Amino acid sequence: MCSPLLRHKRVLTSEFVSLQAATHCPVGKIIHQHTVMACSHLLSHSPSFPKSYSHILGQNTLSQKLLLPVKFKATIKTRPLRAVLSQNAAKSAVEDPKKGHFQHCFTKSEDGYLYCEGLKVHDIMESVERRPFYLYSKPQITRNVEAYKDALQGLNSIIGYAIKANNNLKILEHLRHLGCGAVLVSGNELRLALRAGFDPTRCIFNGNGKILDDLVLAAEAGVFVNIDSEFDLENIVEAARRAGKKVNVLLRINPDVDPQVHPYVATGNKNSKFGIRNEKLQWFLDAVKGHPNELKLVGAHCHLGSTITKVDIFRDAATIMINYIDQIRGQGFEVDYLNIGGGLGIDYYHSGAILPTPRDLIDTVRDLVISRGLNLIIEPGRSLIANTCCLVNRVTGVKTNGSKNFIVIDGSMAELIRPSLYDAYQHIELISPAQSNAEIVTFDVVGPVCESADFLGRERELPTPAKGTGLVVHDAGAYCMSMASTYNLKMRPPEYWVEDDGSVSKIRHGETFEDHIRFFEGL
Amino acid sequence: MCSPLLRHKRVLTSEFVSLQAATHCPVGKIIHQHTVMACSHLLSHSPSFPKSYSHILGQNTLSQKLLLPVKFKATIKTRPLRAVLSQNAAKSAVEDPKKGHFQHCFTKSEDGYLYCEGLKVHDIMESVERRPFYLYSKPQITRNVEAYKDALQGLNSIIGYAIKANNNLKILEHLRHLGCGAVLVSGNELRLALRAGFDPTRCIFNGNGKILDDLVLAAEAGVFVNIDSEFDLENIVEAARRAGKKVNVLLRINPDVDPQVHPYVATGNKNSKFGIRNEKLQWFLDAVKGHPNELKLVGAHCHLGSTITKVDIFRDAATIMINYIDQIRGQGFEVDYLNIGGGLGIDYYHSGAILPTPRDLIDTVRDLVISRGLNLIIEPGRSLIANTCCLVNRVTGVKTNGSKNFIVIDGSMAELIRPSLYDAYQHIELISPAQSNAEIVTFDVVGPVCESADFLGRERELPTPAKGTGLVVHDAGAYCMSMASTYNLKMRPPEYWVEDDGSVSKIRHGETFEDHIRFFEGL
Repeated sequence: MCSPLLRHKRVLTSEFVSLQAATHCPVGKIIHQHTVMACSHLLSHSPSFPKSYSHILGQNTLSQKLLLPVKFKATIKTRPLRAVLSQNAAKSAVEDPKKGHFQHCFTKSEDGYLYCEGLKVHDIMESVERRPFYLYSKPQITRNVEAYKDALQGLNSIIGYAIKANNNLKILEHLRHLGCGAVLVSGNELRLALRAGFDPTRCIFNGNGKILDDLVLAAEAGVFVNIDSEFDLENIVEAARRAGKKVNVLLRINPDVDPQVHPYVATGNKNSKFGIRNEKLQWFLDAVKGHPNELKLVGAHCHLGSTITKVDIFRDAATIMINYIDQIRGQGFEVDYLNIGGGLGIDYYHSGAILPTPRDLIDTVRDLVISRGLNLIIEPGRSLIANTCCLVNRVTGVKTNGSKNFIVIDGSMAELIRPSLYDAYQHIELISPAQSNAEIVTFDVVGPVCESADFLGRERELPTPAKGTGLVVHDAGAYCMSMASTYNLKMRPPEYWVEDDGSVSKIRHGETFEDHIRFFEGL
Repeated sequence: MCSPLLRHKRVLTSEFVSLQAATHCPVGKIIHQHTVMACSHLLSHSPSFPKSYSHILGQNTLSQKLLLPVKFKATIKTRPLRAVLSQNAAKSAVEDPKKGHFQHCFTKSEDGYLYCEGLKVHDIMESVERRPFYLYSKPQITRNVEAYKDALQGLNSIIGYAIKANNNLKILEHLRHLGCGAVLVSGNELRLALRAGFDPTRCIFNGNGKILDDLVLAAEAGVFVNIDSEFDLENIVEAARRAGKKVNVLLRINPDVDPQVHPYVATGNKNSKFGIRNEKLQWFLDAVKGHPNELKLVGAHCHLGSTITKVDIFRDAATIMINYIDQIRGQGFEVDYLNIGGGLGIDYYHSGAILPTPRDLIDTVRDLVISRGLNLIIEPGRSLIANTCCLVNRVTGVKTNGSKNFIVIDGSMAELIRPSLYDAYQHIELISPAQSNAEIVTFDVVGPVCESADFLGRERELPTPAKGTGLVVHDAGAYCMSMASTYNLKMRPPEYWVEDDGSVSKIRHGETFEDHIRFFEGL
């Protein structure tokens, strides 16, 4: 652990060298040139830019920061940076963040460059140690959490961030600092939450296949545990005995509500592997009663699925769950927690669709929760972290096979598998202005991995990019890096974020070839 | 690097401790008990076991080996172990391995236990440090390579093992020792091949998106490089200049043959991102002629796809390719290599289907190859390594949701994603006999990962297993570990193989929680 300033200095030192190397220019010259270009582009071509912001930006591009003395940097810190609305998001977003609509951190400015919190993504791409890489906005993470906190005002609640969406330790530390709890689905996620400093009494251990060793760890740590099945209950009882501690449990009930999403991310219908059936409820209540030294029932839990775009179904599910809670209380249990899970979708299509906000979600269940004096647990993952990040790639080349055109990039299904796995759409755009003669063509955007499953986007209309152009896959903060593999020995990429003060820090080292070799050391 | 004997000793020491811990028995007792049980089961319940084999087995179970003095072990080594045919494979396999049909290393014996090269998989599962884990048969890898070598007799050839199928360094060293070359799809795979000692002149660098840095490495190492596109050719020329070496290149031609497989693993049809179109051939020939100092055209390459079960299409493709080679030679190029790629399927269904063997494949193209005096390059991956391995899991529990029944195991889509990604079938069976009262039920076999995509098999008829029972996913040697992720922070599993002498060695360390934390050190 080191202070932000120290971290900043170290990152800049290495990026400074690579920026210099990449542009083949003398040090002072390139820095100056970049700064001037960035500022003039912004000021002259971007009428949508708030006036109050532009003078900060002028001192705040990556290039400029390379020469900023620490003292000057401290001055900047006192001016809060405000995000610029994305051109796409602008259609649906409203001015007042209190309304709960997300502001967006990645903005295509009228100069044709993509910016992240006012920094040119192109400059960041050229300065980091390797590509592809994940680039986050730390302020966007903060804004997303604040939207949930605002929405939850007046309720007793826990925002349980779903670590499976993104398990970057630095991001977890930031979320904990903002007051989040954590939702865990394995012993290692519990270890990571503890390492990040989360309060165990604001953590929930979920899952249909929790193994005994992990449950013992959970019992020792004192986190909430959701009971998923008969055998899961048996294991939790055994874990409580081994840990010598009573476990606070919630019943995960399958409400059989169709979330109208891809079957792979629907988890609350009758064919799901998750949760208990309502006709078995009494069995579970009796089983809890039978283990007064091991289990304390404190609530009920459901989780409908993921990528949900209609909040009505949350109300349907909450209504069902409230009925269960009434039944459970009727048998003398002091049940205080309603956990409605996560699953709020985001605007992956950048179509300007008006999607439900955290406030819409919470308002849908607020009255029900208050009517029973409950503590509300929510489990957002995607809606907290997905839109805070892009995967930044470089174009290796463009080819055609007659019937199809391809942009081949250095990123792939190894770094980001959602399109291959779920046929998921993630918005793709170039990070620099198209050349004046660039034809707009329908492309498949594919990686170098040796199979046809390796695509990041299909049939995207894009200007034909030059070799070396940057290309981002948007909304890559959730279920992207956490699902990355090293297929084709493409080692997992580094991650960076733009800090509150506009500097860029590395927040995860890239995996190396030597990391692979280490698996065979001494064998 | 250490000798097999030393390696063996070290592995046994750690396994000895965990075996003891797992069974809560005093040391001497458990060893003796296991040995006696294993042997008596085999001898009394397994009439299909060759008589000449059983006395070796009696000295060769894992448990027994724990007490074997090194001297005795050396004696065993002189008796070659022979594989036992799988009950499933037996339907299609024939006695004579020279015919090319695979013998299989995983056998369900009549005692109800699954064996790998004569070792009870259950005993191995209980003795290793953690589950799930990948278990290979080294002799099966040897047999698979020998089948290809036999098939290729009389031809000049290179067996280019496709590293992307499985990038375990110990396996690569073994394949190199058996005389294989290697097919590479990234700079890191090239580094790994060199680390494993492969002869670079028997290595081929493939791919639609090879980046310049990797091509420079390839040029320096002197491997064959397949030209995939216009921009790829440009990059290879540039790499040759930077390396100061001429590169031996093959043209990857897209023959537009439908391999009749899942679209994700079809790579040689007109919609594919791979290869060049025939109408562009002359452009490429002219481009090669234009760079006499950088490029030497030595052959032509095609690759139809993967999981192919009909060899006719190889003949179709080879005929097309031979025509191209005639054209190319007609322009004065000395072209010696025909690379027909890989893609031979295996019997994933264990249905007893008679699939084409390596011999069937090679015999289909033999005359064509000889007629032109060509060197044949083949690129097997799956058919060399898939059937040499199982993913061994333990059952966490069984549950029902009314309409569906689930076996929940500790393995998941994180360790093995093929079923989720391709809806691929991999055969699943329990590794120990069913309890006498176990009902046979249709189950989905699912992991603990928190999404509905996490299944290893759907609608499988299996005896209801007790908690803790071992369950294997067969044919897990290819595109399983190499595609593994750490989703849900399930760290990548360890790998083991059964050696030629019947001992068990670890061939890859399991990834640990601390490996994850290392990505954030110093940030």
